[in-house]
Amino acid sequence: MLIVKKFGGTSVANKERIFHVADRCIAEYQKGNDVVVVLSAMGKYTDELIKMAKDINEKPPKRELDMLLTIGEQMSVALMAMAMNQRRVPAVSLNAFQVTMHTTSDHGNARLKRIDTERIRRELENRRIVIVTGFQGVNKYDDYTTLGRGGSDTTAVALAAALHADACEIYTDVDGVYTADPRKVPGARKLKEITYDEMLDLATLGAGVLHNRSVEMAKKYGVPLVVRSSLNDSEGTVVKEVTTVERMLISGVALDTDAVRIAVIGIKDMPGMAFKVFDTLAKKKINVDVILQSIGRAGTKDISFTVNKDDLEDAVATLEENQARLGYKELHSERNIAKLSIVGAGMMSNPGVAAKMFESLYNEGVNINMISTSEIRVTVLINEKDGIRAMNAVHDAFGLTD
Amino acid sequence: MLIVKKFGGTSVANKERIFHVADRCIAEYQKGNDVVVVLSAMGKYTDELIKMAKDINEKPPKRELDMLLTIGEQMSVALMAMAMNQRRVPAVSLNAFQVTMHTTSDHGNARLKRIDTERIRRELENRRIVIVTGFQGVNKYDDYTTLGRGGSDTTAVALAAALHADACEIYTDVDGVYTADPRKVPGARKLKEITYDEMLDLATLGAGVLHNRSVEMAKKYGVPLVVRSSLNDSEGTVVKEVTTVERMLISGVALDTDAVRIAVIGIKDMPGMAFKVFDTLAKKKINVDVILQSIGRAGTKDISFTVNKDDLEDAVATLEENQARLGYKELHSERNIAKLSIVGAGMMSNPGVAAKMFESLYNEGVNINMISTSEIRVTVLINEKDGIRAMNAVHDAFGLTD
Repeated sequence: MLIVKKFGGTSVANKERIFHVADRCIAEYQKGNDVVVVLSAMGKYTDELIKMAKDINEKPPKRELDMLLTIGEQMSVALMAMAMNQRRVPAVSLNAFQVTMHTTSDHGNARLKRIDTERIRRELENRRIVIVTGFQGVNKYDDYTTLGRGGSDTTAVALAAALHADACEIYTDVDGVYTADPRKVPGARKLKEITYDEMLDLATLGAGVLHNRSVEMAKKYGVPLVVRSSLNDSEGTVVKEVTTVERMLISGVALDTDAVRIAVIGIKDMPGMAFKVFDTLAKKKINVDVILQSIGRAGTKDISFTVNKDDLEDAVATLEENQARLGYKELHSERNIAKLSIVGAGMMSNPGVAAKMFESLYNEGVNINMISTSEIRVTVLINEKDGIRAMNAVHDAFGLTD
Repeated sequence: MLIVKKFGGTSVANKERIFHVADRCIAEYQKGNDVVVVLSAMGKYTDELIKMAKDINEKPPKRELDMLLTIGEQMSVALMAMAMNQRRVPAVSLNAFQVTMHTTSDHGNARLKRIDTERIRRELENRRIVIVTGFQGVNKYDDYTTLGRGGSDTTAVALAAALHADACEIYTDVDGVYTADPRKVPGARKLKEITYDEMLDLATLGAGVLHNRSVEMAKKYGVPLVVRSSLNDSEGTVVKEVTTVERMLISGVALDTDAVRIAVIGIKDMPGMAFKVFDTLAKKKINVDVILQSIGRAGTKDISFTVNKDDLEDAVATLEENQARLGYKELHSERNIAKLSIVGAGMMSNPGVAAKMFESLYNEGVNINMISTSEIRVTVLINEKDGIRAMNAVHDAFGLTD
């Protein structure tokens, strides 16, 4: 078997943890398996490097920032190879140039295009554990790039796809995917299996275990993903195309408090106006989520939508710059909101799921501001202060609580 | 003009110094010159990385140690490019993969084989300042290597040779090559010019300004070297094939207190025994300097020689392991010695130079233990406690004092 294992920054934050990860990988290797390990930068080292850069240049050129950031993972992989060597197990570390990891040229947010597997295969044939830098790539100009958020997960999945690995294990500080965040919902249960689509919705909704880019890629190439704990040996959650365990109606409840709502008030009621608003934002690469359009007074429309907190400033600035062209009257924004979602492949064939969710919220006295649905997801916008109470109520209503 | 400038770790140890170096390079660039900058790792960062490695693995694999160490220079060059960008001057940083710097495979002590200049030339044509990682290279297996001591100087000289640069300026914390170490000989004078050969002898003798590998390479390819201060604008010392200024008899006096003497007592007086001793040490890569062989008692020989302090333990261990084969009686070592040398192309045609040196030492009451000479150098072994006094006496005797 060929196994790709990915460990995040906290898993390699110090000497003890590095050896802990080394020993886990060695145990796999000693079963006779081929092992490829993908690592992030140690602890908060990437943040430290960014701080170092900004101390020199408030807006460092992205090409040079990537040049600086890639040293973080190179440090991790070199130290990991030394730790395995200390245990007398042959290991070799490889950076993006050595693999090679070909990406697009968008510094800070590059996409993987192609991975050369020759070097890795040769090292595996020589029975070495291969340790690869996550998060980084090389563009066609031979410059370093970084993959942005969730980059190391994406590296791991892409490597698993390119190497036709038997499994891609993502080690995190939780021991799998839960029906809800256990810190917020004490009775949350760990799922044995979940589909790519459910995981995608959970990832998008900020359930936080896996980044959606990596799940999308796993789905596209049919890479069997496993989410496991880096701290214990429990089995984790398998993410795959179709799950075989008996389906619950919904798989999980997710709460996202990183969203803010923007309301564009008094847009002329003409065709194409909504398009113009969202197109203007899209050109600034601002993602828009839950959208509500309503008829205002005197032949005008109001459009509300959510964006990520980090994009609020940009979104408002962009809309204000374009006020004349978009022809709206006012702009409001609301920070104290939360997005509560239920996700489950089981709900497709079960009408009444949404109704059940709304009922439980009504019983709990929680106001719903906006609603958005997909085939396997229902999302409602509520007040942030109601978030955790609402989450628990819905979790209970669907019988997910242990 | 194309100028290669090399700055060491202390010159880029913090933000202020990085900007200081950036501004010096920008001043050169704004004269219309092409500028290539070679940097070492910041301050003591390489030492910190080695410490980090040894904390994980007392004897880290050299391949992985190089993988770790190369991040030091990558950090320097990325931050330098950001600093220049902050000053609104276009700059690009390149590591050994991006250049490419081809080396042999000896990790930790690789030799440069070939430098691809295409990328650098393209960047210079686009009027960018090009900032290159010193000290590092890539071997034929696509693995990082490091060049060992004086590696960044070597990188700079090799780049200057490959690019046919008009000058290679080595910036240090002294402002040139002196007739003697000014901290030890208050009247020492800065030399305007010095030949490669003289510089080589001074480097070998621990005068410390330039590493001999870089001087050897400069001599081989006829690269005009300039040793300058990174702190002030004074003119520095030019190192070249033939100097044009009126020659002094000797160019400088060097004192090396890093040597220790080993005496191998009672070797059988048979042909090939001395060879065996030195061959045994050479196989351990221990460099042997000043050698004295003398007839001992009862048909035996004694051999004395010096090695660097750092090699003493290794040398003694190696000789002890081979005592039976080498057939000697005793091994002595002496730490409190110093090597005092005079260097000068002028002495070739001037008999009596050595005699003058010995006379000045005699007058000062300094005992000479061993003597070694080359065409442009006379070295004597003396007691360490006499070192600075002897150095000043010789410096005076040759009229070098201001």
